[in-house]
Amino acid sequence: MLKADERIDQLYSQTIKIIQSPSVFSFSLDAVLLADFAQIRPRSQTVDLCAGNGAVGLFLSRKTKGSIALVELQPRLADMAQRSVVLNQLQKQLTVYQLDLKDTFTKIAKDSIDVVTCNPPYFPPLATSKKNPNPYLAIARHEIATSLEQILVITSGLLKMNGKAYFVYRPDRFNEFVTKAAAQRLQTKRVRLVYPKVGREANMVLIELIKDGRPGGQRFLPPLTVYDQNNHYLPEVRRLLYGND
Amino acid sequence: MLKADERIDQLYSQTIKIIQSPSVFSFSLDAVLLADFAQIRPRSQTVDLCAGNGAVGLFLSRKTKGSIALVELQPRLADMAQRSVVLNQLQKQLTVYQLDLKDTFTKIAKDSIDVVTCNPPYFPPLATSKKNPNPYLAIARHEIATSLEQILVITSGLLKMNGKAYFVYRPDRFNEFVTKAAAQRLQTKRVRLVYPKVGREANMVLIELIKDGRPGGQRFLPPLTVYDQNNHYLPEVRRLLYGND
Repeated sequence: MLKADERIDQLYSQTIKIIQSPSVFSFSLDAVLLADFAQIRPRSQTVDLCAGNGAVGLFLSRKTKGSIALVELQPRLADMAQRSVVLNQLQKQLTVYQLDLKDTFTKIAKDSIDVVTCNPPYFPPLATSKKNPNPYLAIARHEIATSLEQILVITSGLLKMNGKAYFVYRPDRFNEFVTKAAAQRLQTKRVRLVYPKVGREANMVLIELIKDGRPGGQRFLPPLTVYDQNNHYLPEVRRLLYGND
Repeated sequence: MLKADERIDQLYSQTIKIIQSPSVFSFSLDAVLLADFAQIRPRSQTVDLCAGNGAVGLFLSRKTKGSIALVELQPRLADMAQRSVVLNQLQKQLTVYQLDLKDTFTKIAKDSIDVVTCNPPYFPPLATSKKNPNPYLAIARHEIATSLEQILVITSGLLKMNGKAYFVYRPDRFNEFVTKAAAQRLQTKRVRLVYPKVGREANMVLIELIKDGRPGGQRFLPPLTVYDQNNHYLPEVRRLLYGND
């Protein structure tokens, strides 16, 4: 079941197993924090865009009984995600679509979804001279195959009125994100900054959007700090990764 | 020198004395945090808008040798500010203008200022039925005599290219603030969220704007938390209020 460079990692806090490959794609803390931040009801219909090897969707399966669709462009990653779905016996709840994001509506109806999650490519397109030697990572990290604007168009199209979207993004593009989201009828509501350590600047931001929400009323949740001064995970993050044990 | 309901308060950390009146206007932590957040060079020309009883301008006098102009609409508050300037023997550095903000350019030249600071009215205009019984506080807190947009127009007009502005504002209007600032050529650069306690949502936000700065590159500084669980000031705030003693 595993290909040569793959291994099975486990998120111990949720007893989820995930097929990863260091040379192709491994989930990182972003995915864990995004899945934790998303608020999903027992019967929510959820779509995870830019799904990668499926980490976010797999984690979300522990928060809802509703269906979760994973949309991933890259065949190799979509295949890893599909095999992880089987490994966790979640075929009834999770569906993996290997699909260009822009073709999402060929598989999932518009205005039909309660929750969209997305850990999108954070970085602008690469200059040709600086192409990442690893094409899997280049597409996952840089706006090569899609753009923030396109992702927000699809997100808004999928959501029912008052549906919610959850993103993890880079703080230095926060204003751009908020402005482009508002242009697609997605109002920023809850925001959580993630700091690597006490005394450092934020290096991630978790954002909740509401489709057709009223402007205003942003709430900045308590900050999340990842590591202590000795580079050990602080309790909240440790709980997310390893559970309460 | 003091009127009936006035008293002299001191910011111990900076040996500044401030004439206040509980029935008219007293500075609060907002002003202390704003003055701390503002980066001012030794010879910067500074304007403090919505100056109230002058607290921010008086605190800033300890960070620069450059001139500081205070613009305040309400005669009673401008008079308190002027008497505090005299009390601290800062007449050579600080000038108080009792002036409607929209008339600022009758006294201060456009494109001449390095730094603008402002602790503006945070709240929308009051409904007639809910007028604050204290008109001094109503004008200081609500957008009655001015608006966020007008304040940003004046701020942008005062600043030289690449001049900086520092605001303290409400988190729930953060997106509106950022969008309206950008419309006046003021790009949000550094942001610091202020939390009342660990585990609570932010209740203030400190924002640095740069005139004609490039969009993008927002930086979210380490969060500032004010009180510990026993309602005592945490060390950073205690230092700002009482100094290192």
